Amino acid sequence: MSEPIRLVILTASDRAAAGLYEDESGPALAKLLKQTLGATLVARQVVPDDRATLAEQLCTWADGGEVDLILVTGGTGFAPRDVTPEATRDVIEREAPGLAEAMRAASLRITAHAMLSRTVCGIRKQTLIVDLPGSPKAAVENAQVILPVLPHAIDLLRNAPESEAGHRKLPGAQMA
Amino acid sequence: MSEPIRLVILTASDRAAAGLYEDESGPALAKLLKQTLGATLVARQVVPDDRATLAEQLCTWADGGEVDLILVTGGTGFAPRDVTPEATRDVIEREAPGLAEAMRAASLRITAHAMLSRTVCGIRKQTLIVDLPGSPKAAVENAQVILPVLPHAIDLLRNAPESEAGHRKLPGAQMA
Amino acid sequence: MSEPIRLVILTASDRAAAGLYEDESGPALAKLLKQTLGATLVARQVVPDDRATLAEQLCTWADGGEVDLILVTGGTGFAPRDVTPEATRDVIEREAPGLAEAMRAASLRITAHAMLSRTVCGIRKQTLIVDLPGSPKAAVENAQVILPVLPHAIDLLRNAPESEAGHRKLPGAQMA
Repeated sequence: MSEPIRLVILTASDRAAAGLYEDESGPALAKLLKQTLGATLVARQVVPDDRATLAEQLCTWADGGEVDLILVTGGTGFAPRDVTPEATRDVIEREAPGLAEAMRAASLRITAHAMLSRTVCGIRKQTLIVDLPGSPKAAVENAQVILPVLPHAIDLLRNAPESEAGHRKLPGAQMA
Repeated sequence: MSEPIRLVILTASDRAAAGLYEDESGPALAKLLKQTLGATLVARQVVPDDRATLAEQLCTWADGGEVDLILVTGGTGFAPRDVTPEATRDVIEREAPGLAEAMRAASLRITAHAMLSRTVCGIRKQTLIVDLPGSPKAAVENAQVILPVLPHAIDLLRNAPESEAGHRKLPGAQMA
Repeated sequence: MSEPIRLVILTASDRAAAGLYEDESGPALAKLLKQTLGATLVARQVVPDDRATLAEQLCTWADGGEVDLILVTGGTGFAPRDVTPEATRDVIEREAPGLAEAMRAASLRITAHAMLSRTVCGIRKQTLIVDLPGSPKAAVENAQVILPVLPHAIDLLRNAPESEAGHRKLPGAQMA
């Protein structure tokens, strides 16, 4: 990993966006990613639980080419206004189901309510988008599950190296 | 949970619909949900394995506003007529993949054939739709996995309370 | 299982298709399926990581009616050219998420990088399509997870028997 991970954090919450509550998940995630992976926080934003608003913000960041990783916290449950997974699915080009499955499986060992997490993860252009629950505790617990693979995932998105695995270089073969 | 869960059970089976076999999964599920969660059985129906028929029946119940939970049993496997997951996906507005993943993971500890379960779970309006296998034993085993979280899930769908988790009320803030 | 499983293996790799590397996953998978399940290798092909090419090849085999199982190896990760899951999703009519979930869960016990596997499994007509990672080691490890259920899965796709499970034959009932 040559350069630090360029991170943005998007909090989906009607009440935090309205100033009624303070977003605690966003700062907790920023701290975690900085301390463990040395990530650089490029931006942090709080928006209402609105599918179009969320999708538009995700596109702006992913299409700008300046962001490696977007963590979205909140709006992933069963309440009628919880539409973060739908917004994420609206914009990703390639789904990464293994990240969401691994986070839910790990959370399930802590609480049965992990079953109600509807998080979606995927890739748009060269940016990885990861949904996380809205509670600071659950958001951090979920993020910790995928921390070990994030540097490699982002390296792949950045550098576009075809994996060497599974290929034996043929004698005399030249790379194009 | 103020009022009992209003439950309907939909059995997808060509042969049960034709009267060639008796549906045993439907009654077994009704008994389980009544005994464990005090659910009220609003309706129980047996239909052929037809995608449009299934989708239409699901919409009728979900759009009527009188049903909290639809359990669909049967049609979730690999046989050509097994199209329950496709019908469910046709009608849900928000997928709840954690329920299906948790049921398959738990079933996998009982039998490797759990891998062949193609069940889909999701939400349409304020109704939760849960696919279950067709065998009474597997249907009950799968339903037991999600029983602990159903009351909370349905409370969220009914009352639309934004989760308090992850938000600290700001001094002086008023709820809209 | 009356007749041997008719297997084809499709390797997605720009460099193997260009002759720069030798495909090792394809032969390893062919050997595994032959030795464990007595499968007959009908065809084996190496194509570039191109979504349309992959989708077209999958359709040709699935629609020809001569193939029970297509194993696709490679192109399932995070590199920009990894589009095998998207090609698979383009052509399947019925998804089989339990196979992909079980493979990832089992791989996760070996390496955290299993989270980055984006494999998709599903059915087109009577053919089962299974994505596998590109590395020979991971491809074989993943395939071994689903080996025990493949014969039953393919029997269901071939013979279209409605599962007996969950149905008690009514006295005097005749099969149509």
